[in-house]
Amino acid sequence: MSKIVIDQIENSLPDYFEGLTFSKLAVLVDENTRRDCLPIISELIPIDLIIEIASGEANKTLTTCSRIWQALTDAEFDRHSILINLGGGVIGDMGGFCASTYKRGISFINIPTTLLASVDASVGGKLGIDFNGFKNHIGLFREPEAVLVDDIFLQTLPKEELRSGFAEVLKHGLIADIDYFKQVSSQGLDHENWKPIIAHSIHIKNEVVKSDPSEAGLRKVLNFGHTVGHALESHFLGTSNHLLHGEAIAIGMICEAYLSLKMLGLSKHNLDEITSSLVSNFGKVKINRKELPDIVKHTYQDKKNLNGNLNFSLLKSIGEATFDIQVNENDVIDSLFYYLQIAD
Amino acid sequence: MSKIVIDQIENSLPDYFEGLTFSKLAVLVDENTRRDCLPIISELIPIDLIIEIASGEANKTLTTCSRIWQALTDAEFDRHSILINLGGGVIGDMGGFCASTYKRGISFINIPTTLLASVDASVGGKLGIDFNGFKNHIGLFREPEAVLVDDIFLQTLPKEELRSGFAEVLKHGLIADIDYFKQVSSQGLDHENWKPIIAHSIHIKNEVVKSDPSEAGLRKVLNFGHTVGHALESHFLGTSNHLLHGEAIAIGMICEAYLSLKMLGLSKHNLDEITSSLVSNFGKVKINRKELPDIVKHTYQDKKNLNGNLNFSLLKSIGEATFDIQVNENDVIDSLFYYLQIAD
Repeated sequence: MSKIVIDQIENSLPDYFEGLTFSKLAVLVDENTRRDCLPIISELIPIDLIIEIASGEANKTLTTCSRIWQALTDAEFDRHSILINLGGGVIGDMGGFCASTYKRGISFINIPTTLLASVDASVGGKLGIDFNGFKNHIGLFREPEAVLVDDIFLQTLPKEELRSGFAEVLKHGLIADIDYFKQVSSQGLDHENWKPIIAHSIHIKNEVVKSDPSEAGLRKVLNFGHTVGHALESHFLGTSNHLLHGEAIAIGMICEAYLSLKMLGLSKHNLDEITSSLVSNFGKVKINRKELPDIVKHTYQDKKNLNGNLNFSLLKSIGEATFDIQVNENDVIDSLFYYLQIAD
Repeated sequence: MSKIVIDQIENSLPDYFEGLTFSKLAVLVDENTRRDCLPIISELIPIDLIIEIASGEANKTLTTCSRIWQALTDAEFDRHSILINLGGGVIGDMGGFCASTYKRGISFINIPTTLLASVDASVGGKLGIDFNGFKNHIGLFREPEAVLVDDIFLQTLPKEELRSGFAEVLKHGLIADIDYFKQVSSQGLDHENWKPIIAHSIHIKNEVVKSDPSEAGLRKVLNFGHTVGHALESHFLGTSNHLLHGEAIAIGMICEAYLSLKMLGLSKHNLDEITSSLVSNFGKVKINRKELPDIVKHTYQDKKNLNGNLNFSLLKSIGEATFDIQVNENDVIDSLFYYLQIAD
């Protein structure tokens, strides 16, 4: 497992590098983290190379990877060099993938700058890029050497980015801890201090990942909301409609809570609680009925599927999840109709 | 470690698949192995998809990877599918890389069809592709589930391909077993039965890899001849001159034997033996003095280098290798001059 430190970055970063042997150090940023986050760390450690890529999921591609690999090559980075990923999920997923494959693997460190990356993407070793419209289609499992978390970076975020990460926080409650769900659900986004929430969410995720790093079984519960959620993201990637990861996962969790009721007997009361929490935190997204076939088509590329069957992680109750539940296409369409009919 | 079986493929392949659970099966071939090798296995197992790529190192690129990933995607291969790499080093290295990164990793099996792939590339889990002229620059370490070796495929090879693999056989003797070196060196390529040679070479390589899978230390000895050899390959990739991997490694071993004399006191007698064995088996390649700076430049991209210093694996004597020997640029140039002055 990675070393995870939740502390002020001006302590944790120099501490981590003290006595560490390496050849060169690069930092991967986008235009936002270069402006808002890099100044916070740039005086703390000796940086040899800054690699800037354009922000956004649309750039999480092989083309961008080639630019990153080329930058490392041009600066003659060897196998003993280190890459710091300073950013959100896109930076972490893609930077980790590039580091893990450059000269068959150099070390990398994540400094997550979004709530989403802090509680989810930076932990657990899932790396990857999108490929011709399919989310995280090319990638691998490899842990960062360290994850250094500091909520100071969250102050640089627009509120919608904070909300996007909040979907994963709610998910951690839904799959593993009903009290946590009720607490974070009622508090919403109005926090001064995110550190305890980040710490508890990372704890929940780590416990699951430790027991099943390569997602052969139990780890699949972390995918609750993501089968439909990723299909929505893939679908909207191909349109002019902007949908953040958390917004897609929020819709996915509502649909999959509906499927949980249908397949596993999740109580109507639980479904209503989940629906109302997610709609009050995320609002409603307009989806046209005509879009449903394309959305459902994308669920067939989900990595959990087996033998062409759709394979879901669902809830028995709030706080208890299970996995490998086969669901047919019509039920998925029903679950999307359930979402469409919810009052705004 | 992978399961390695050296047997007739009509036994080993159905045996391996008996009782195995998987969703779909693809075979990666080039135009040569499709014509000569695929018919040997196509009736033995149920193949869902054949992916054909153009043969040759020049196609070991991200562009070809994208075609392989797209073919798997189009055929709706899921995480429980299997890829068989039927071919030489290019097919194995690139197919393994694509399998290891498709949906974060599906299983793959190597059926090597060249001597080089049988004794070297298929064993040990080094995967990768070339990147903008740099050999195996992007890749990772991952073992195939199984390597099924049958020398029936060697009968489909042109003699120069057999010779290319023979360089690695000689290398195994040079780094680990003087008697083996003398035996294979004197026999040359005139064998009816390659199985015992393949078995002994795989044994030598496996013993080294087992002790150091990710090449932190001892495994580097397998790179003897490869620092200069890969630089020659990278250099000639950019020219119209055709140089097979084994031919480049043969020159590399002569140069690095010279460096072994200079740096480690390898005996003049050993250097002469190595030079004469390699020249008699591989002939002499014409290299112009003007090309030397570009060749040396390429040695700086070697993955063993540390802090910008050239880091070699060299011989103390025939049968005994060591690693992490720093060599300066002028000595590398001297070693290439040593090669240039050898009588044909």
